[in-house]
Amino acid sequence: MDAITTKNGTIYFDDEAYYKLRLHLKENKYSKIFILVDENTAKHCLPEFRANMGGKFNFETIQINSGEINKNIETCMEVWQKLSQLDADRRSLLINLGGGVITDLGGFAASTFKRGIDFINVPTTLLAMVDASIGGKTGVDLGVLKNQIGVFNSPQMVLVVPDYLSTLDQRQLNSGFAEMMKHGLIASGSYWTSLKKVDSFENMDKLIYESLTIKNDIVMQDPEEKNLRKILNFGHTFGHAIESYSLEENNLPPLLHGEAIAIGMILEAFLSNRTMGLGMYQLEDIKSEFNKRFKKVDFTDDDVEKIVELLKFDKKNTRGSINFVVLKRIGDTIIDNKIPKELFHEAFSYYKD
Amino acid sequence: MDAITTKNGTIYFDDEAYYKLRLHLKENKYSKIFILVDENTAKHCLPEFRANMGGKFNFETIQINSGEINKNIETCMEVWQKLSQLDADRRSLLINLGGGVITDLGGFAASTFKRGIDFINVPTTLLAMVDASIGGKTGVDLGVLKNQIGVFNSPQMVLVVPDYLSTLDQRQLNSGFAEMMKHGLIASGSYWTSLKKVDSFENMDKLIYESLTIKNDIVMQDPEEKNLRKILNFGHTFGHAIESYSLEENNLPPLLHGEAIAIGMILEAFLSNRTMGLGMYQLEDIKSEFNKRFKKVDFTDDDVEKIVELLKFDKKNTRGSINFVVLKRIGDTIIDNKIPKELFHEAFSYYKD
Repeated sequence: MDAITTKNGTIYFDDEAYYKLRLHLKENKYSKIFILVDENTAKHCLPEFRANMGGKFNFETIQINSGEINKNIETCMEVWQKLSQLDADRRSLLINLGGGVITDLGGFAASTFKRGIDFINVPTTLLAMVDASIGGKTGVDLGVLKNQIGVFNSPQMVLVVPDYLSTLDQRQLNSGFAEMMKHGLIASGSYWTSLKKVDSFENMDKLIYESLTIKNDIVMQDPEEKNLRKILNFGHTFGHAIESYSLEENNLPPLLHGEAIAIGMILEAFLSNRTMGLGMYQLEDIKSEFNKRFKKVDFTDDDVEKIVELLKFDKKNTRGSINFVVLKRIGDTIIDNKIPKELFHEAFSYYKD
Repeated sequence: MDAITTKNGTIYFDDEAYYKLRLHLKENKYSKIFILVDENTAKHCLPEFRANMGGKFNFETIQINSGEINKNIETCMEVWQKLSQLDADRRSLLINLGGGVITDLGGFAASTFKRGIDFINVPTTLLAMVDASIGGKTGVDLGVLKNQIGVFNSPQMVLVVPDYLSTLDQRQLNSGFAEMMKHGLIASGSYWTSLKKVDSFENMDKLIYESLTIKNDIVMQDPEEKNLRKILNFGHTFGHAIESYSLEENNLPPLLHGEAIAIGMILEAFLSNRTMGLGMYQLEDIKSEFNKRFKKVDFTDDDVEKIVELLKFDKKNTRGSINFVVLKRIGDTIIDNKIPKELFHEAFSYYKD
């Protein structure tokens, strides 16, 4: 597949990816090369990565604990301290080998170490491939609040190697698939239709490529999220709150990002129906597609109260009002839509129904 | 005095400064305005600042503890959490009212909160006025290592109001004066000569203005410190190591930034004499000027060992070699000069002599 040119770097695929990386390392003569991994990617991905680099480079490994719960400043401190102890300097490189936690946190650590060193992302989960690999967002959570601390900064390059997907279980693949479905909902009815037909996650290369192209087109037009780019937040206003809540409170099982935004998309599709005329048939289509792939979560009234309370911390909010991205129809989106809070509870009722 | 246009913002002076800030706040309609202070500026500067803003704006105050020792990620966390609790959003503004710790840390906190909110610096120390107010460097220390974590990002505007200097003691004024002397040494022999005549810190406006102009000229030519800008690090390679060491170890009294770089400049002037032909007369002139204004520090051989060990963490170092900025003559500087370690101990002997 052809490389995709993003705002500040390029995404390479499969074998070409490793080739381009080897070339980049030869040309750039970094003083040291670090690879950030967690215990999972250290075991399942690092050997393959090393093998494909041909043994010609020296890598220092920095390992952190996996999981969204560790995507915080404390883990960032560990990475900074490790870089410092291992004599990283401004001409060093950090390669982030892992899922979204690794690429987001590693990107932030690199962007702020000595006021910024180069970094390269090698996403190993479906979610990170189709979402975190484009867009120049780096960051960590602040307590329960997702991605509150971060900067906009792009990796030198991104390598998308779908082989790494074989290391994932079904639940993680589903989580990434939710973001792909979002790309269909916000920008392409025909892509949405293709995704509905998917019943196995083998040979996903072309579909991944299409997701990346959709996201990249959007980000290129509005890199700093002033307008258009906000459509990528469809399902995420509720999704982030639900995800945070599920990780923080013991009332719900901890949800993966994609699982949370799948619910968020049903809720926000409902809001779209009530405020922007998204047709009932399309609303039902969305709900049934997500419910087919994701187990229903049983929210109590108390859960709903607390999730709604969390919405006010959403980064997209200004002046105390909560802005939603809504669908006019599948593939066509409207941003900055203020929605009365009364509808929030109705949305949950519709989801639970 | 005329405003100075920097790379990404403008520096305003005295009364015009307050006027321009009031205008900026009216035009920008920030959702909330926060002021970051420490216990000193809360007491000595905030009332004057508020009085000059004319009571038309609502400010929320965030207070941190003063001192370099608190310029760390933990304090940053406090600021982020406070911003979060007080419902700061992406359209909020942070005004940093204080010395270099406040402007560096506040700038970093703002640059990373929700991936970046606007900030404005109001330096209240001489050091922050002539140094931290230009250049777009933000950051915090990592343990003993100065400014290891940060980003390049410029405030929307900088207000330089020399009235605030009346709140400082002689030692703090001297510390700032060391940076002004550095500007003479690296870029202007005639400015150096003017500064040598200064025997009181009243009416410093014109001299401050000249320092800012020198620094701004340099930064405008090389904002990201690829080449020319490195000359601003004269005295800072040893200076930072000495400052860190004095704060961390109990062997020495804790030094202010300017006190440490004054020593650094004598040491690096000595290296300049030995490797780049800085004349003996000028070397002696530099040493005697700094010794006139700063108390000599009594380093033991063990202190010197440990300070030299710290040099390897300097951000300017690459591939394990230590790069110095050296003087060819007063007002004329050379960057990226690798110096054999043997000379380091000789430099300390010269200082102690």
